[in-house]
Amino acid sequence: EGDLVLTLSCPDRPGIVAAVTQHLFERRANIEESQQFSDHRTGRYFMRVRFDTGLADVDVEDWRREFDSVAGEFGMVWELRKAVTAYRMVVMVSRFGHVLNDLLFRWKSGQINADIVGIVSNHTDLEPMARSYGIPFHHIPVTRETKAGAEAQLRELVAAHDVELIALARYMQVLSDDLCRDLGGRVINIHHSFLPSFKGAKPYHQAFARGVKVIGATAHYVTADLDEGPIIEQDIHRVDHRMNAEDLVAAGEEVESRVFARAVKWHCESRIILNEDRTIVFS
Amino acid sequence: EGDLVLTLSCPDRPGIVAAVTQHLFERRANIEESQQFSDHRTGRYFMRVRFDTGLADVDVEDWRREFDSVAGEFGMVWELRKAVTAYRMVVMVSRFGHVLNDLLFRWKSGQINADIVGIVSNHTDLEPMARSYGIPFHHIPVTRETKAGAEAQLRELVAAHDVELIALARYMQVLSDDLCRDLGGRVINIHHSFLPSFKGAKPYHQAFARGVKVIGATAHYVTADLDEGPIIEQDIHRVDHRMNAEDLVAAGEEVESRVFARAVKWHCESRIILNEDRTIVFS
Amino acid sequence: EGDLVLTLSCPDRPGIVAAVTQHLFERRANIEESQQFSDHRTGRYFMRVRFDTGLADVDVEDWRREFDSVAGEFGMVWELRKAVTAYRMVVMVSRFGHVLNDLLFRWKSGQINADIVGIVSNHTDLEPMARSYGIPFHHIPVTRETKAGAEAQLRELVAAHDVELIALARYMQVLSDDLCRDLGGRVINIHHSFLPSFKGAKPYHQAFARGVKVIGATAHYVTADLDEGPIIEQDIHRVDHRMNAEDLVAAGEEVESRVFARAVKWHCESRIILNEDRTIVFS
Amino acid sequence: EGDLVLTLSCPDRPGIVAAVTQHLFERRANIEESQQFSDHRTGRYFMRVRFDTGLADVDVEDWRREFDSVAGEFGMVWELRKAVTAYRMVVMVSRFGHVLNDLLFRWKSGQINADIVGIVSNHTDLEPMARSYGIPFHHIPVTRETKAGAEAQLRELVAAHDVELIALARYMQVLSDDLCRDLGGRVINIHHSFLPSFKGAKPYHQAFARGVKVIGATAHYVTADLDEGPIIEQDIHRVDHRMNAEDLVAAGEEVESRVFARAVKWHCESRIILNEDRTIVFS
Repeated sequence: EGDLVLTLSCPDRPGIVAAVTQHLFERRANIEESQQFSDHRTGRYFMRVRFDTGLADVDVEDWRREFDSVAGEFGMVWELRKAVTAYRMVVMVSRFGHVLNDLLFRWKSGQINADIVGIVSNHTDLEPMARSYGIPFHHIPVTRETKAGAEAQLRELVAAHDVELIALARYMQVLSDDLCRDLGGRVINIHHSFLPSFKGAKPYHQAFARGVKVIGATAHYVTADLDEGPIIEQDIHRVDHRMNAEDLVAAGEEVESRVFARAVKWHCESRIILNEDRTIVFS
Repeated sequence: EGDLVLTLSCPDRPGIVAAVTQHLFERRANIEESQQFSDHRTGRYFMRVRFDTGLADVDVEDWRREFDSVAGEFGMVWELRKAVTAYRMVVMVSRFGHVLNDLLFRWKSGQINADIVGIVSNHTDLEPMARSYGIPFHHIPVTRETKAGAEAQLRELVAAHDVELIALARYMQVLSDDLCRDLGGRVINIHHSFLPSFKGAKPYHQAFARGVKVIGATAHYVTADLDEGPIIEQDIHRVDHRMNAEDLVAAGEEVESRVFARAVKWHCESRIILNEDRTIVFS
Repeated sequence: EGDLVLTLSCPDRPGIVAAVTQHLFERRANIEESQQFSDHRTGRYFMRVRFDTGLADVDVEDWRREFDSVAGEFGMVWELRKAVTAYRMVVMVSRFGHVLNDLLFRWKSGQINADIVGIVSNHTDLEPMARSYGIPFHHIPVTRETKAGAEAQLRELVAAHDVELIALARYMQVLSDDLCRDLGGRVINIHHSFLPSFKGAKPYHQAFARGVKVIGATAHYVTADLDEGPIIEQDIHRVDHRMNAEDLVAAGEEVESRVFARAVKWHCESRIILNEDRTIVFS
Repeated sequence: EGDLVLTLSCPDRPGIVAAVTQHLFERRANIEESQQFSDHRTGRYFMRVRFDTGLADVDVEDWRREFDSVAGEFGMVWELRKAVTAYRMVVMVSRFGHVLNDLLFRWKSGQINADIVGIVSNHTDLEPMARSYGIPFHHIPVTRETKAGAEAQLRELVAAHDVELIALARYMQVLSDDLCRDLGGRVINIHHSFLPSFKGAKPYHQAFARGVKVIGATAHYVTADLDEGPIIEQDIHRVDHRMNAEDLVAAGEEVESRVFARAVKWHCESRIILNEDRTIVFS
């Protein structure tokens, strides 16, 4: 259909909404959804608008050109894309398949606006799952010695398919600082704790040791600073004294899958905008 | 401060946001918050805008006059009020005080944008609580014979104080059809079940009898059709086989208070718009 | 391992726990888990004990024989089985695969103590999913004319495999009264609403029409009285005015899967005991 | 009535339940509630039993004497008290009254099995609230210089009333190490974050800075190690990008009150047993 999605941020000042909506009105577009947020702390304004152009065959480039003058006037950082254009996504996993299984089923049933161009893993355990969905599987093992080469392979894949999102669905390797930087805002990780609690390895075991009564999961953009990237979504699961660390691991699977799926879904609908080290989520 | 809140609904068509925001821009207002919803089913458009006029002393009447031409063009149903103007509210209770206690504490700590002009009860149990907050208490007993008179007293109170919201904080009497109609959209009730489950009397006992694993509470606008009014908010509490009906009653208190407080708070911030028998909640 | 699970119910009176635990102590068993509930309303006592016999090769029949005298003294209805003995289960589905997908993944990863002896469907859509897990798929179409025959086929399957649990993972056909009666307490259904709200067909559409702010799902044992069987588990998902009936359907998938998986898991660990038209869940 | 509550822990071995329940059976007691937990990690066994002695006038000392031989045989640490015996409690607050207001209302309505022998504050803001409930209010200001004296006053109060629980309902002073040690397991604090996230001062501001999507509260026993004591209960509240630190503070009030009330209620029903630096909660 002829829907476009516009996301933007700029220094806040009167007249932004008027300018944007006047522009859309003049081009006979009808606003379907519109959300905005004005951050008094940073003085920046954020907006997401989904509008119906009424056209069967939309020339996005033309709409971008036309909007450029509005954007320039306000110093906007912005993006404009067709609502139906799927995000080109690579999913990375290691051995645990619960998050991948949940994501693939949702994706197959049309809930995730993405083309999964490949599944990458440092193991082969989940190759059958990838194959059952007809998705190319890339086995890229990682050792200390081969890490640079492995990342080079990943970069090639990203470049070859013009990948827009890398979804780390329990990928247990740390990406290099360089890669984190180069793919900034394009890599979503699921951390199996309620960040900032229990950073690093074996968070459920840490949680058990601390005797918490609630465990959680956190989806966040990956930065060079491990487990410190902007948080997209979090959710929790109650636990009690009868559960040991392994029970927490099992109980956490569900919340990991849920939180990750939401984050990926929102990203693929252009609902997330970075605001320094925080996220605006127009869910 | 100089903030105004505009709420409106009208038949959906291109140009509404542009017209409203252009109007505000021309009057040098800065949009602080803006939410909209386009209901494809009914073809109606709904909007709430909070904007800063930049003026120390806002003449609301003047702003209303000016906006009238925009409103007329689109056939808008609309309201415009100062953000700081408290809603004039009457709270009605019977014997259970938990919802009232919670509401009054929140109100006292500034969370509810209301002037509580009086607390009305068909009993005297909660008079001390009303007094401890310095709020006038009106004891209006209700029997089959005195019901008409009691409602007349209530109407007087409403008229005398120009009451904008009647909050039924576990008021156990049914209002007459006439009163419901005359006060349409201005009376919020808390029903102690997860509507439409367990309408009518003793919902926790009904819930126990059915063996549910989750109980709930529902805040809704009151209509002549008992427990059928537009739902504003709902929430739940888990229960288990060890709890009897009285335990459910106790467990439910918390969720009743929470749900009711949210509904009243939102109403007093002009965040709720009626859409036929449903609510738009711009929370 | 040598763990056994004992579940029992009987008229409540002093000495039950003493008798059971004394018996286990004399047989050198060590109690691993024990839960009990005394229902003052019905005067019945319910208990679940998991104990370690300390034996590598447990002769369950022998333990049953020995326990019989204790059981007889108190008029117990009881069961004793090895903790590791998987429940023989048939899963029935129609076209929606989200609940099945979630269940199969959990089952594959060892969370559900069951042998899935077959997947039965009145459609063929989910045959590939069944096959990818290596589970026999039975296509048993149902029309008004063939219903009796279809149920006969199902009964054969149940008899042939000594099936202990039939899990209706969004099976959209109503079972006959006779079948419900004959399989009483052995059929778990997932209803896609927060029962007793929205019984019958298209519950999400009913929920949308009523304008609720929370949707839910209910796992219950099937009885001849449609959607009235004993509730095992319920959970909810928040919704808002922006969501239409189809959005509710999508949002509900997750909670349906979650609720159903818990109910099936608990059944297969002998954690559920029927108490008239209610359930005791020793989760 | 004649109900007693027994709580115990001891090294795990076969025969504990049999011995305890046989003892109760011989004394003609009927078990009302019973919960147990066997910690494989530490090899300890924990149990809580509530039983009905059937006696109008129970001589607790006598029951203690009789149970002593059972306890001795298994090396039990144990307590036995009448179920109706209220815990003697002191509540400490500073300026924020939401947690106190919630606790007092629940206490007044009979939900908390406690005698509040006094409310202690380093400020006078909440004196009226204390008075409205008829509870003695003690203003004990604390400065660096007077801290020792202030704690001496508190110790006197504790000694004079044989206080069993000190409930820190947002008391903003740190207790000295000595006091923490001397009152070990008898002081419950509510920390306004989801521990171990955001220890120390201004946790909501820390939470805002980190950009979390969920905030929480934690009730825990106080130890000399600040914010590191055994966790009793935790719960959470969703937040979003529109909320600043002050909004988080307001949103958190509700969850703080809820979490704290549960912890205090459970403690006063002897439902919590310490297991090294963790809690067993037989809720």
